[in-house]
Amino acid sequence: MQLVQTCAEVRAWLATERRAERRVGFVPTLGALHAGHLSLVGVCRQAADRVVLSVFVNPTQFGPGEDFSRYPRDLERDLRLAEDAGVDVVFAPTVEEMYPFGRAEVTVDPGPLATVFEGRLRPTHFRGVATVVTKLLALVAPDVAVFGSKDAQQVVVVRQVVRDLLLPVQLLVGPTVRESDGLAFSSRNVYLSIQERVAATVLHRALVQAGDGIRFGVRDPQVVESRLRAELATEPLGTVDYAAMVDAERLEPLLTIEGRVLLLVAVRFGATRLLDNLCLRVHGSDVQEELP
Amino acid sequence: MQLVQTCAEVRAWLATERRAERRVGFVPTLGALHAGHLSLVGVCRQAADRVVLSVFVNPTQFGPGEDFSRYPRDLERDLRLAEDAGVDVVFAPTVEEMYPFGRAEVTVDPGPLATVFEGRLRPTHFRGVATVVTKLLALVAPDVAVFGSKDAQQVVVVRQVVRDLLLPVQLLVGPTVRESDGLAFSSRNVYLSIQERVAATVLHRALVQAGDGIRFGVRDPQVVESRLRAELATEPLGTVDYAAMVDAERLEPLLTIEGRVLLLVAVRFGATRLLDNLCLRVHGSDVQEELP
Repeated sequence: MQLVQTCAEVRAWLATERRAERRVGFVPTLGALHAGHLSLVGVCRQAADRVVLSVFVNPTQFGPGEDFSRYPRDLERDLRLAEDAGVDVVFAPTVEEMYPFGRAEVTVDPGPLATVFEGRLRPTHFRGVATVVTKLLALVAPDVAVFGSKDAQQVVVVRQVVRDLLLPVQLLVGPTVRESDGLAFSSRNVYLSIQERVAATVLHRALVQAGDGIRFGVRDPQVVESRLRAELATEPLGTVDYAAMVDAERLEPLLTIEGRVLLLVAVRFGATRLLDNLCLRVHGSDVQEELP
Repeated sequence: MQLVQTCAEVRAWLATERRAERRVGFVPTLGALHAGHLSLVGVCRQAADRVVLSVFVNPTQFGPGEDFSRYPRDLERDLRLAEDAGVDVVFAPTVEEMYPFGRAEVTVDPGPLATVFEGRLRPTHFRGVATVVTKLLALVAPDVAVFGSKDAQQVVVVRQVVRDLLLPVQLLVGPTVRESDGLAFSSRNVYLSIQERVAATVLHRALVQAGDGIRFGVRDPQVVESRLRAELATEPLGTVDYAAMVDAERLEPLLTIEGRVLLLVAVRFGATRLLDNLCLRVHGSDVQEELP
């Protein structure tokens, strides 16, 4: 496995792969790799001949007062995990390499999908995500790129960026990987105290209950949302930022539960925000879990 | 020469060219081809094995009340001219092909360079340009793309889009081609009445005079701008939108005339706006004309 740290090295490596007509896959990450990221590498390896994984804590997707400076960073550990998972190239640029002219003046504006839920609470977040993803996709020029389900709104936004800007890449989505008690793996879980870590299982539990309600025939979105919020409220350590059910493409409220629907939750435990979601395809009485 | 009208056809054609390791060049246009465009094709042919020319009157770069609907369109004529100039592929998509989901919700925000001069008068123009250029570059994936000097601010904005988004393309700039009386070729010249057509020569004349002043040693930007405006004012049919001298990279005002400087003029004749510019590199007493 190679570690490359400059855009020039990425382009040089890529030229060789292109001449050999190998399919290149890409897994963008902020590092602090966990089982969720490693499962994305597995998805990517099945779809490509070579896997590039980026490790870049992108400053433009963090807002003022957010955890950019304390976000966990351990490149040595990430390299070991990436190599074991079968990554071919880790691209770990500096901030200066990705933003050589200071803050980027040209940005990708992701539009209305980025103004709700996470985008309402973190107004500059998805512009930063859309911009850095566009840059990384332009640089790595992968045939396929893999994003994790846990950040469902990010998946929806990135899908629209790729679609609207005609970016020549196939997007794949990997399933959320969970601890044995159901908590979704997240690099931010390390911020949790022991009590908060126990309390955090409420996100998945509430989503599973809401999904069960839908399987049992509930078709009124307000009933499901109320039940979801009531379950989240049983955990006094958590403060709910949002808990909603929306249509999975437009992230808009539903009149009835039919088609692809997405349940989104964000809960704060102290200064730590955790996200989780459940995506379902509902056709009449048939309810299937899907990737967002 | 091939005419292709869908993104899928472009991608299929491109795959063949890539496998043959041929260098692809790209000249984006709004059609209504004239000698200026054809000279860009010539620049492109020298730098690439294949030349793709796009003909697309991009609605998102026209503001409300602008000339989108009456912009000159004559694809048959454009095809003849393109073929004679040595174009290999003309890509002439419909608006629906380029914006299949209605107005693009994801856009490229070109930042502060797009808020001055043309951007101040046409607030959505450069966002439309930056977005469609990013899309066309993502689709055609050219090794080299050629833009015309006449739209100097567009060159500066597109250069920054390519730089900030890490788009893997080399930008080339082609010189402004002029009628025998100095008027820059523009698809909008057809809008001019006979009297306006004669009056329009004032743009180039004023720029040449300002350039002569600089060659004769004038180094005070305000003196040059005053002289430029005074010459433009000799033409009663024209209304000056702006006439300014700025630094050629940042489009910011100058304290003294040194380095790469750009003189920008925009003048209205009736409902028709015409642009022209002069780019100079000044080192002490040495003054050279350059491409923006």
